[in-house]
Amino acid sequence: MNYKDKYSELVRIVENRIIEVIPNIKPFELYEPFRYIMKEGGKRLRPVLAMICTGAVGQDPILALDSAVALEILHNFTLVHDDIMDNSSMRRGRATIHEKWDSATAILTGDVMIGYAYNLLPNSKQSSRSDEILKIFTKELIEVCEGQVLDMTFNERKNVTIDDYIEMIDKKTARLIETSAIIGAHIGEASSEEIEAIRNISRNIGLAFQIQDDLLDMTSTESNFGKPIGNDIIEGKKTFLVINAQKKVDDKNDKLLIEKFINQNGLSKDEVPIIDELFKRNNIYLDAQKEIDLYFEKALINLEFLKKNDYTDMLLQLIQSLNKRLI
Amino acid sequence: MNYKDKYSELVRIVENRIIEVIPNIKPFELYEPFRYIMKEGGKRLRPVLAMICTGAVGQDPILALDSAVALEILHNFTLVHDDIMDNSSMRRGRATIHEKWDSATAILTGDVMIGYAYNLLPNSKQSSRSDEILKIFTKELIEVCEGQVLDMTFNERKNVTIDDYIEMIDKKTARLIETSAIIGAHIGEASSEEIEAIRNISRNIGLAFQIQDDLLDMTSTESNFGKPIGNDIIEGKKTFLVINAQKKVDDKNDKLLIEKFINQNGLSKDEVPIIDELFKRNNIYLDAQKEIDLYFEKALINLEFLKKNDYTDMLLQLIQSLNKRLI
Repeated sequence: MNYKDKYSELVRIVENRIIEVIPNIKPFELYEPFRYIMKEGGKRLRPVLAMICTGAVGQDPILALDSAVALEILHNFTLVHDDIMDNSSMRRGRATIHEKWDSATAILTGDVMIGYAYNLLPNSKQSSRSDEILKIFTKELIEVCEGQVLDMTFNERKNVTIDDYIEMIDKKTARLIETSAIIGAHIGEASSEEIEAIRNISRNIGLAFQIQDDLLDMTSTESNFGKPIGNDIIEGKKTFLVINAQKKVDDKNDKLLIEKFINQNGLSKDEVPIIDELFKRNNIYLDAQKEIDLYFEKALINLEFLKKNDYTDMLLQLIQSLNKRLI
Repeated sequence: MNYKDKYSELVRIVENRIIEVIPNIKPFELYEPFRYIMKEGGKRLRPVLAMICTGAVGQDPILALDSAVALEILHNFTLVHDDIMDNSSMRRGRATIHEKWDSATAILTGDVMIGYAYNLLPNSKQSSRSDEILKIFTKELIEVCEGQVLDMTFNERKNVTIDDYIEMIDKKTARLIETSAIIGAHIGEASSEEIEAIRNISRNIGLAFQIQDDLLDMTSTESNFGKPIGNDIIEGKKTFLVINAQKKVDDKNDKLLIEKFINQNGLSKDEVPIIDELFKRNNIYLDAQKEIDLYFEKALINLEFLKKNDYTDMLLQLIQSLNKRLI
């Protein structure tokens, strides 16, 4: 099997397990939206990464399946609650839960999802690392909330530095990718050296992935990205692109446009092509791509610390394919 | 020490631990509301009950302290999220979190609280029952969400039976009291017979407690109850009182008033004294009190299955004092 087929095979296993673990019981008001959000899941990066990392330290990836699904549920829980807070009406090309049902349903669906995620983590009979895995998973739940608060406070702050930004995306997005990899490694009973290598690999994948998300918001197409292009600009999100542009632009009109974005908490849909032109002229997309390449490179360097097998190969190909994502 | 002093001593221990476990760190936007909701906690029934149950099966109650605080955090998490969904602006005589801050803050505060609760549960080194405790705690998180959904769907249903009502309050409220007692018992390494006795005791306390809450909504005073009197009637909640009245009243005008309550999803503040008179005339308060007495009696009968010690005594006195609560 080539890389793509192997990846798809893991996705299929994860998605079959997802269908199994969401009960088809009352109250349907809760389990129908839970099933809805979990159904169209895009790449399933987090659970697949967890399973690959179990394989990368020499164990059967299937051992990590339930924890992988727990991580995917945790990820989707954050989407459900974030979408309420961000007032987002679309996600992966479909109506968000609070839009299709209502906010109360979305709050409760998110809450119950946390319970289902915990239920899938290994107990002490299933894994000798169950205590560590539980602790890491809970730390992640806490940090993802902290990251979302940071993200929201960015809206009110005029000056957000690149360091602030990295702290925020680290907690809000990158860390869950790191946590997925580390939980997979623990299920594979990884040594502390292997855990360290996998931490460095996945942390850099996570950071690259988020900056790439910021970039794709402007450079992708709506059908590929599942969201309208320029959405972050319209919503006033202080992304890597905006923060870098704020620091970099010299031209008076450019400065005025960025200031307008900051002061009005976003621009209109009509102004998206204008800021796109500004970004292009100031090499903002190129800078972002360089940063993404740098993080992926760091991930690759750390891959050298793992003993080669089919799954370290898969990890290598995963990094390479993520770096080419849609651009 | 008499019962009241012993109870207060446990409350003091729980509240000191609560202060310790909520971090005084950034982002304050998250930890300030967390501290705020946990600060004024009323009776601390759930954590104190957990600790008493550890004592009632012959172990030191202090062993259950962290789990007790986890249960109190879980309880408060449900209040924070329920208050958003119910649009409640007051809780324990103070503004609710979504009112004092905003909905996004309240959603995230609730979410992060779940993480802090899980962090306080014992790991496999701290308790031989850690797997069971984790499973019971997670089941509780799931059921409390299901209970809240049932409660919300009651608003749209014209006919809710007493059985529907009992199912709803069992999941939404009573079960957390039961879960607290059982987790305390597991920490005390209770036998399966002791667990069964404590389940029956606490389940009946929980049901009595919720029906009492419905009753106090009409018969208490605002300063004792921390909420305006008749709040459930104004909000259109289908409480034990309303469901019983709906089944029981014969008089044409009485029927019309209940129908108005059902069809308009509640009555105005001015109509609260009118329905109060209806409840009195039809012995609705007396019926509720009888039901409460019955559940407390069942709790007392099951107490006989435990070997007597200081903490089974305390459990007896707790049941007696709850039965006299404010009426």
